[in-house]
Amino acid sequence: MPPDATETKKRLMRAAVDEFARYGLAGARIDRIAENAAANKRSIYMHFGTKEELFDKVVADSMVMLADSISFDRGDLAGYAGDMFDRLERWPHIRRLYYWANLERERPIDAETAQYRQRVTAIQAAQTAGRIRDDIPAADLMAMVIAIVNSWDTAAWSLQALRSEFGSRSRGGRRAAVVAAVAGLAQPPAHTT
Amino acid sequence: MPPDATETKKRLMRAAVDEFARYGLAGARIDRIAENAAANKRSIYMHFGTKEELFDKVVADSMVMLADSISFDRGDLAGYAGDMFDRLERWPHIRRLYYWANLERERPIDAETAQYRQRVTAIQAAQTAGRIRDDIPAADLMAMVIAIVNSWDTAAWSLQALRSEFGSRSRGGRRAAVVAAVAGLAQPPAHTT
Repeated sequence: MPPDATETKKRLMRAAVDEFARYGLAGARIDRIAENAAANKRSIYMHFGTKEELFDKVVADSMVMLADSISFDRGDLAGYAGDMFDRLERWPHIRRLYYWANLERERPIDAETAQYRQRVTAIQAAQTAGRIRDDIPAADLMAMVIAIVNSWDTAAWSLQALRSEFGSRSRGGRRAAVVAAVAGLAQPPAHTT
Repeated sequence: MPPDATETKKRLMRAAVDEFARYGLAGARIDRIAENAAANKRSIYMHFGTKEELFDKVVADSMVMLADSISFDRGDLAGYAGDMFDRLERWPHIRRLYYWANLERERPIDAETAQYRQRVTAIQAAQTAGRIRDDIPAADLMAMVIAIVNSWDTAAWSLQALRSEFGSRSRGGRRAAVVAAVAGLAQPPAHTT
């Protein structure tokens, strides 16, 4: 591929990430992506195919980048939650892509599923070792940890309106609350041996 | 208002709930709502104003209906989570409206905020009474409980693909996992008095 085509592809991907993160799949407009990338619509179809295919690529790349950036040592769920919190504070567009994909594109992404499989297997091993409660299935725990990390960002605006009065007032406070919550959630019940 | 106008309004609201739950605000089409309600587009503007105003009404009505249907005795978070789980299994469109509104309509709804305020205040009272851990602010706990209830439905499809292998296999199993998780999350740490 000639260098200028690579450069155009990169600009298109950046513009597509912005557009889809802001407007979702249905709301995104291909001509706006082309305009913001200083390219033409035809080059999008040529490089990426349909709008849906471009969306899938944007989501897959973002999710794999996010997962690759977070360590997951010995199924340490609280540490994992803290790490994920930090990444998503830095990359808020990934969170929006995640939720758009959930609502608008009901299909798994193979590379992402492979990463989840590694993590869920690590949680199972930690459950067997007694470090994580074993009365909740490993995949359920994974889903809950992600949900807790995102809890303020997915909260209704009507609840967010109460945050300054009844909630964590700083980013550090929110992070501490997330880590404490996941630690409490993961803890094996005190009455077990 | 003549009876037939009331009837038309009801049909339009039902069609609007379906349309917005499926496609969100940007993706919804007013002419499809009119068609499904056997009404004309003009009657939508007449009764509800703009597409955005109709969306706001659909979301507000749905959220208030949901909140009214769930009891919240003495800040019993695990019971609340179980109740909310049951309602959202019965009314899956409300969950979708909740997430669309989060992504597409960044503004609180007064009636919903008033309900959240009651609940958050009840959590604070339960924290003071020592029934709920007090190291996480009450509004953060509220946001986390809602996130856990919805955790499978907001999970990436790439994680959902692993549910049959590593997760709860039945609705009852998912409900039990949610209630156990919220109980663990809310529990005051064992080392406190």
